[in-house]
Amino acid sequence: MKIGVWKVAMANPSDVSELAGLIDKGAVNPAEIVALIGKTEGNGGANDFTRGYATLCYQLLIGRHLGLPQEEVGKRIAFVWSGGTEGVLSPHATIFTRSSEGFADGTLRLAMGMAISRKIAPEEVGTVAQVKEVAATVRRALAEAAIADGADVHYVQVKGPLLTPASISDADARGAVTVTRDPNGSKPYARGAMALGVALALGEVSEDQITADVIARDMALFTSVASTSAGGELSDCEVLLFGNSPSSASDFRIGHGILKDAIDADGVRAALQSAGLVFEGTPNAEQAGRIVSVFAKAEASPTGRIRGRRNTMLSDADINYERHARAAVGAVIASITLDPAIFVSGGTEHQCGPGEAPIAAIVRI
Amino acid sequence: MKIGVWKVAMANPSDVSELAGLIDKGAVNPAEIVALIGKTEGNGGANDFTRGYATLCYQLLIGRHLGLPQEEVGKRIAFVWSGGTEGVLSPHATIFTRSSEGFADGTLRLAMGMAISRKIAPEEVGTVAQVKEVAATVRRALAEAAIADGADVHYVQVKGPLLTPASISDADARGAVTVTRDPNGSKPYARGAMALGVALALGEVSEDQITADVIARDMALFTSVASTSAGGELSDCEVLLFGNSPSSASDFRIGHGILKDAIDADGVRAALQSAGLVFEGTPNAEQAGRIVSVFAKAEASPTGRIRGRRNTMLSDADINYERHARAAVGAVIASITLDPAIFVSGGTEHQCGPGEAPIAAIVRI
Amino acid sequence: MKIGVWKVAMANPSDVSELAGLIDKGAVNPAEIVALIGKTEGNGGANDFTRGYATLCYQLLIGRHLGLPQEEVGKRIAFVWSGGTEGVLSPHATIFTRSSEGFADGTLRLAMGMAISRKIAPEEVGTVAQVKEVAATVRRALAEAAIADGADVHYVQVKGPLLTPASISDADARGAVTVTRDPNGSKPYARGAMALGVALALGEVSEDQITADVIARDMALFTSVASTSAGGELSDCEVLLFGNSPSSASDFRIGHGILKDAIDADGVRAALQSAGLVFEGTPNAEQAGRIVSVFAKAEASPTGRIRGRRNTMLSDADINYERHARAAVGAVIASITLDPAIFVSGGTEHQCGPGEAPIAAIVRI
Amino acid sequence: MKIGVWKVAMANPSDVSELAGLIDKGAVNPAEIVALIGKTEGNGGANDFTRGYATLCYQLLIGRHLGLPQEEVGKRIAFVWSGGTEGVLSPHATIFTRSSEGFADGTLRLAMGMAISRKIAPEEVGTVAQVKEVAATVRRALAEAAIADGADVHYVQVKGPLLTPASISDADARGAVTVTRDPNGSKPYARGAMALGVALALGEVSEDQITADVIARDMALFTSVASTSAGGELSDCEVLLFGNSPSSASDFRIGHGILKDAIDADGVRAALQSAGLVFEGTPNAEQAGRIVSVFAKAEASPTGRIRGRRNTMLSDADINYERHARAAVGAVIASITLDPAIFVSGGTEHQCGPGEAPIAAIVRI
Repeated sequence: MKIGVWKVAMANPSDVSELAGLIDKGAVNPAEIVALIGKTEGNGGANDFTRGYATLCYQLLIGRHLGLPQEEVGKRIAFVWSGGTEGVLSPHATIFTRSSEGFADGTLRLAMGMAISRKIAPEEVGTVAQVKEVAATVRRALAEAAIADGADVHYVQVKGPLLTPASISDADARGAVTVTRDPNGSKPYARGAMALGVALALGEVSEDQITADVIARDMALFTSVASTSAGGELSDCEVLLFGNSPSSASDFRIGHGILKDAIDADGVRAALQSAGLVFEGTPNAEQAGRIVSVFAKAEASPTGRIRGRRNTMLSDADINYERHARAAVGAVIASITLDPAIFVSGGTEHQCGPGEAPIAAIVRI
Repeated sequence: MKIGVWKVAMANPSDVSELAGLIDKGAVNPAEIVALIGKTEGNGGANDFTRGYATLCYQLLIGRHLGLPQEEVGKRIAFVWSGGTEGVLSPHATIFTRSSEGFADGTLRLAMGMAISRKIAPEEVGTVAQVKEVAATVRRALAEAAIADGADVHYVQVKGPLLTPASISDADARGAVTVTRDPNGSKPYARGAMALGVALALGEVSEDQITADVIARDMALFTSVASTSAGGELSDCEVLLFGNSPSSASDFRIGHGILKDAIDADGVRAALQSAGLVFEGTPNAEQAGRIVSVFAKAEASPTGRIRGRRNTMLSDADINYERHARAAVGAVIASITLDPAIFVSGGTEHQCGPGEAPIAAIVRI
Repeated sequence: MKIGVWKVAMANPSDVSELAGLIDKGAVNPAEIVALIGKTEGNGGANDFTRGYATLCYQLLIGRHLGLPQEEVGKRIAFVWSGGTEGVLSPHATIFTRSSEGFADGTLRLAMGMAISRKIAPEEVGTVAQVKEVAATVRRALAEAAIADGADVHYVQVKGPLLTPASISDADARGAVTVTRDPNGSKPYARGAMALGVALALGEVSEDQITADVIARDMALFTSVASTSAGGELSDCEVLLFGNSPSSASDFRIGHGILKDAIDADGVRAALQSAGLVFEGTPNAEQAGRIVSVFAKAEASPTGRIRGRRNTMLSDADINYERHARAAVGAVIASITLDPAIFVSGGTEHQCGPGEAPIAAIVRI
Repeated sequence: MKIGVWKVAMANPSDVSELAGLIDKGAVNPAEIVALIGKTEGNGGANDFTRGYATLCYQLLIGRHLGLPQEEVGKRIAFVWSGGTEGVLSPHATIFTRSSEGFADGTLRLAMGMAISRKIAPEEVGTVAQVKEVAATVRRALAEAAIADGADVHYVQVKGPLLTPASISDADARGAVTVTRDPNGSKPYARGAMALGVALALGEVSEDQITADVIARDMALFTSVASTSAGGELSDCEVLLFGNSPSSASDFRIGHGILKDAIDADGVRAALQSAGLVFEGTPNAEQAGRIVSVFAKAEASPTGRIRGRRNTMLSDADINYERHARAAVGAVIASITLDPAIFVSGGTEHQCGPGEAPIAAIVRI
């Protein structure tokens, strides 16, 4: 297995020209594209349509090259977008290809596994049932990635369903009870259950710790490597698992760290060093040039304070707290990686401890 | 001369309790307060009333202690507020006291001078006349600060008038011509002329370089130590000049650096080191504890790019670019100083080179 | 009893010049001012400090005239501000005076009663206990207004406490249980309980209908004349009750109507006609000139639809739905009253039926 | 000529299901579609990508039916979108078809003409050259619509280029001078020149009145029936002209009115009555049901006041003034037409007198 990693800039949400250029010059084989993780310049909220727009445009491009209708492209390639490029963050996509070329030399190199769960019923969203189903799915992705040791997993991106007015009605019609009746309020449950599913699969929590009353509540249970998101358009859970495997022939290595808070520069450095980048303080230009992609979560401090100082993220009625958090975290990361094209998204239930956030980095070997 | 520096946190724009506590316990003598520079949690725009609210509340507090009506307090103390605590920035005020106590030991220590210009007529705003008047005012402040060498000046905060519909009408009535008829459009001229006034006084530009057509246009002319702001409520220019003087008995030293862009962590370090803080990479807790206050400007990149990557600050119709810039710069600084109570404000015409911004730091000796 | 009604425009939240002018020329006796209801130009959210700023400035003005410290003014005069002047809405205050001058001629004229509840404990907020306490308070205000018939009540403004992190901690410390642990989520409970208290006092619901599980849930129970708001700074409930009484010598009459949705022009007309204004279609200039003040609530449709058409208020992550709703309702009202200085605020739990909102109007006789 | 008018609701910017349904059941012949004018739920600013997204989705749908690539659909059908559904406004599109079926009975019925100008060079944007070119284009559209009398024209939608950094560079390279160097600042010039082009073609201004110094400056010159918009993606000017013609066999009639300000309900009524709808005060359900589409402009008052009351549209740093204006105007119109699916867009240079705005209505006969 060889994983290719290509970061392309975007001049707007419909700009697919950089990928088109890579395909045209033969650098990227469109048939080998398996996933895309990117940032668009929307507001990141419920009315952010830049994600759907970008997905459509990439699907049309790839579909043209593969002779497939756009819908079919959606079935073979995973698209993960986060809206909101606050502060210095720059709209871009990281495109992953997978091929069987190359010989593995037995050193740990970037590997990747993908798996999709069965459909999650509305009454299962945010429950123990979802936790277990996600755990099973993560285990399949782990096998596909040829990663034997959970400690070699550094980034698990999961997206799955939240509750919508329609899905709540569906549950009602069947006499089933949902975890909440508030669509927006279902997000923490959905993201939390998926994160706990990762934690369970990787042995970060044990099965007997997972009960209905811990999901989105007992934040002492968590995974350090998951990034989960919930959307109304999904009914199953898609898992993208990244780690290092001795069976991989990739030119990259992945690592991860933990951001203790929104200004934790040491956490950023730890992620880069975990991926094998050797540097002190700030990477020099050559070192920084080897950092291909960074994936982090950003969140408002649950205490409303950072290093003892109050911030106003949670009381600001004009700008959503996630936008404040992404702006801050993105700038701190970029001040070290020297590249503002970073993936930073919001919502950290059971993803690292309270107030903390995960960060993963892919580095060219 | 001994300058005291007190940073107080604020739970909201009307919260003066920390200063009240310092006065009550005798740490701060209200009669010695000469200036306040702070951040409030408004939007930083034309309809940000948190600045006026905070000013009123501090004036009422100090007035009660001095037995003075609120208006009189406004005449003896300079208030400089910047609205907008984006990202991790924390609402606070730095309060400066000045007394004649203590013996100077001849080492360079924090000194401060204040001076006010004559009234600037509407037709002078943004013109060579204003540049020269500000330069003269800065020279008076320099003398008051007992600073002989311009190289010992590290931070000059100037605020003065912009054009308003009323002041434009006033000029019209007298047949005088203003630099623009657009009130909002007068800000760059006003801020720029004040910055060039500082540059002229400190010898960073020469008098023959200052012509009408360079103001807010030829950005190759600039000062590296000014931070200027323009407001509709002013008719004269207030100068707060900070530097180090051998005649000072203060417990602090000030330094400055230049932020090459919004993620220039090395620029932050240079400012701290310029103020005498000795550290490598990131200050440790003891070193960080000696950083009392940081004052920086933040600005969108004029090219729309940072380190080659496009950002969306200038095209965002929901969040003003100054808010994006402050969020990013504030987080980068705080990731090094480990304190989010930092003064970061917007608008950098002739304040450092294009795309750059000044940063000053006061450090306890 | 004679109630005076004075509407003053405000150039900014600290502008008290119009009231100052009315006092200076003897039109308003500052000792007779009992209440102020106004709109400020903030964002209407948790970080809208324009309300506190305006309160402080009016208290300072009135305090100067009465020789009272500002805090004492706050105890004798009720201040009700709603932040957010979206669309055409214009910042202003309606000031109410009360005196014993004049003879009542037995016709129904504007009367007013004020009363304050005992302190509401955190564990009582949003509960039946609060409903009953508000009902008792409304009954006292009714008596003070000399209104015998509940049908003569047209506008009851109530403000009271919501839950804050501090008040929840206080309840915890005493082992008491609050209705929710989410401060923001306590608003509907608090507003709803106060509205049901009004409904109970006026006989719009019966005591046996009021149980814990109906508050903020069973929207078939409601009052048609209350406007309630909840704020973190309060611990008791303040009631301002307006109606018509034969014992009043006022020059005004009040009436009310119901807005079926955000574009219900007929509901606006009904309120004006209920107050005694005789007109067809749109008032002419003379008729419009007799409309002194209008007080309305605005709310997003719970279905997300108005007249069968979807709107985007509830999914907009950039602009809060209350701001959309106030902009729309304010413009519709102003298109009929021909005066954009209208009081429109948000949050309608148990205030008219689901999707509906109350509107009251004071008209000069 | 027979013009069909179909209003379709949209559940999101990519929702083309209502048009798909009309095509599937044979009500709309996709080959006859000539234009679409609609509102999307973006922010209406430079970073509003909902317009491009909706265009792409409609082009893909129609292209599938016509067997044409998406780009070709763009060449045969005019797409005009305005972003921003503030207040009650509802996302929708009005689709126009044109066929030769039916016999004209000689009464005035809805007619439509379309024409495209030659490319406008960057140095011509906002100049007399553009005014004249637009005028010539409008005359061609007039002929195509078979309208002999300019008084029968009620709505002329024009969109054309603004200046972009790229087009300014292009002019620079050729030594040509543009009307401004500020891309955003070019909008008033571009919109103004197109509006004056309509005024010139329809005889509302004379050719000798059109000089360089009146464009975007002398607002006493204007057209009462144009709605113009400028976008960076265009290089020519597209004219959609609507009026009534005795040669038309359409089932609709169009009329127009003038909104004196944002709360001018009488202006709304005048537009409906001009289109032939007979009613007093507010249309009843049957009358309202005959109103098919309404097209209006909304703008902040240049004085900052409406009916003598200050509004805060122009000083609000959180919400753009165009969003405030659309929310207000849309609600006032909907309160009369009883349908919130209305086209309201911003920017009125030379479109009606200062502070005024055009409104057109299409009514089923």
